[in-house]
Amino acid sequence: MGTRELGLPMRVASSEPEVLPDAVTIWEVGPRDGLQNEKEVVPAGVKIEFLHRLAAAGLPVVETTSFVRPEWVPQLADAGEVLDGLRKADGVRYPVLVPNARGLDRALDSGVTDIAVFAAATESFTRRNLNRGLDEQFVMFDPVVRRAVTEGMRVRGYISMAFGDPWEGAVGVDQVVSVGRRLLEMGCDQLSIGDTIGVATPGHVETLLRTFVAAGVPVERLAVHFHDTYGQALANTYAALRVGVSTVDASAGGLGGCPYAKSATGNLATEDLVWMLEGLGIEHGVDLDALVETSTWMAGHLGRPSPSRVVKALSAS
Amino acid sequence: MGTRELGLPMRVASSEPEVLPDAVTIWEVGPRDGLQNEKEVVPAGVKIEFLHRLAAAGLPVVETTSFVRPEWVPQLADAGEVLDGLRKADGVRYPVLVPNARGLDRALDSGVTDIAVFAAATESFTRRNLNRGLDEQFVMFDPVVRRAVTEGMRVRGYISMAFGDPWEGAVGVDQVVSVGRRLLEMGCDQLSIGDTIGVATPGHVETLLRTFVAAGVPVERLAVHFHDTYGQALANTYAALRVGVSTVDASAGGLGGCPYAKSATGNLATEDLVWMLEGLGIEHGVDLDALVETSTWMAGHLGRPSPSRVVKALSAS
Repeated sequence: MGTRELGLPMRVASSEPEVLPDAVTIWEVGPRDGLQNEKEVVPAGVKIEFLHRLAAAGLPVVETTSFVRPEWVPQLADAGEVLDGLRKADGVRYPVLVPNARGLDRALDSGVTDIAVFAAATESFTRRNLNRGLDEQFVMFDPVVRRAVTEGMRVRGYISMAFGDPWEGAVGVDQVVSVGRRLLEMGCDQLSIGDTIGVATPGHVETLLRTFVAAGVPVERLAVHFHDTYGQALANTYAALRVGVSTVDASAGGLGGCPYAKSATGNLATEDLVWMLEGLGIEHGVDLDALVETSTWMAGHLGRPSPSRVVKALSAS
Repeated sequence: MGTRELGLPMRVASSEPEVLPDAVTIWEVGPRDGLQNEKEVVPAGVKIEFLHRLAAAGLPVVETTSFVRPEWVPQLADAGEVLDGLRKADGVRYPVLVPNARGLDRALDSGVTDIAVFAAATESFTRRNLNRGLDEQFVMFDPVVRRAVTEGMRVRGYISMAFGDPWEGAVGVDQVVSVGRRLLEMGCDQLSIGDTIGVATPGHVETLLRTFVAAGVPVERLAVHFHDTYGQALANTYAALRVGVSTVDASAGGLGGCPYAKSATGNLATEDLVWMLEGLGIEHGVDLDALVETSTWMAGHLGRPSPSRVVKALSAS
């Protein structure tokens, strides 16, 4: 039970003025991050309908799939088929995760205009996930990001394990900021700061975000990505909003889980986030009823109920 | 699906300085609020062991049972037997819910030194729950509270439906503060402000708490009681801590549900709260491992897993 000491114990960092954003862009990760750990392969046709439904529910960004090697993530081996079948809605962005030059080629061939690269804040995780060291990951990503930018793409840089790491424990904020700055320097236009194993708490979140801002990174370029393994995802999101973060990752119905944490609980549920944003008077553009219907429909395909509290409550009523 | 409009949409209320407390008193409500809606009656012996385990895990206040009429809450019909069998731990408080003069007599006979009365912020709910109007509830509680204080008891006043009400929708903050002031005037030493149906969001929480403080109620006399029906309980707790609230109600393992909300999700789980407090560096005195063991043991008795994310994650590891 020692995993609970992986986050950094931190009180609120400062008495800086707090600026809740007027509007939040929800970056929907269900089709990619949510589905990628599902053992049973979901048919491409279901994935395509999922994407259509999410866009129709008002989500402005729907991370669509990944061009990672099929043997690593069999669930997303149909990336090309999904992209071919997708009818893109006006004004909606459909980013795709791209691990390397080969993935970028495939993304360009498929007409993708938004990509994301999946970096990490710790040596242990880059060794395990990318088979190279913390510094070497930049050597891998640099030509991909630079070429994507030259091709007119928007590139997001994920920073996974940004709070705690299953092998190293708590992760220092300066190390995370250093990784983030290198991603921005190579051309990423946004960083998604990920609590991959769900150990963060709100003071740690606020401290890390303020350290980014103090290092000269505009808050507009920061997104947050929380997992609900220990129930902290929405409280952490609230802490991030109060620093001024206005892009929040979430997964419809709370789909997904981290393969490195032993619990099955996964991403922050988009519905629970929407509930909080509505209550805070923050614009989000999502039709909650349509989203709940979509998550309930997907739960039917997966054969188990959504872990989202809002989905449970609203689909019971 | 209209219940989501029951809370008040509110941004953060003010730029008041924020004061996280150094320590929080967790008011454990599992044995009373958590169990009271369980249909299958839990044997008194199991309840007594539950109380012993909770105190041994370091919880400083364990709400023990209720002297409500047995036909209303059959689960707690064994209140006398539970109190007779309880070995009180040094320094632990064991409050009991008392609805009326008859309940107070029984509490006094049982050696109880802490009681709570269950008031509400709305006319609709007092009519349904107490069979009298909003103002009439004070007529009922007044002699009970005054006599209890005379007998040297400490009295907590619950204010249920303090954010939203299933029949009335959003509840105005001034109405809640008015109810709270009347409870304090009759002798309650603490108010527990309850989001009985789980619809509150953090801006509403902060606004209500700051309205209490602006009305002259010291923040030390305010406790918060959140339900996780829509996943907001911990984010709301964080908002309350930032106003300086230092007593937080929670239920071991997330036991409990609101009979007036159609969803089964219940109280804020004590374990999820403890995780956040540890991360924030706020003292709480609870042994999380012992608590998780206790909740897992109780889940075995109830025949279903705990909904607490922390219990799930730690008992899987």
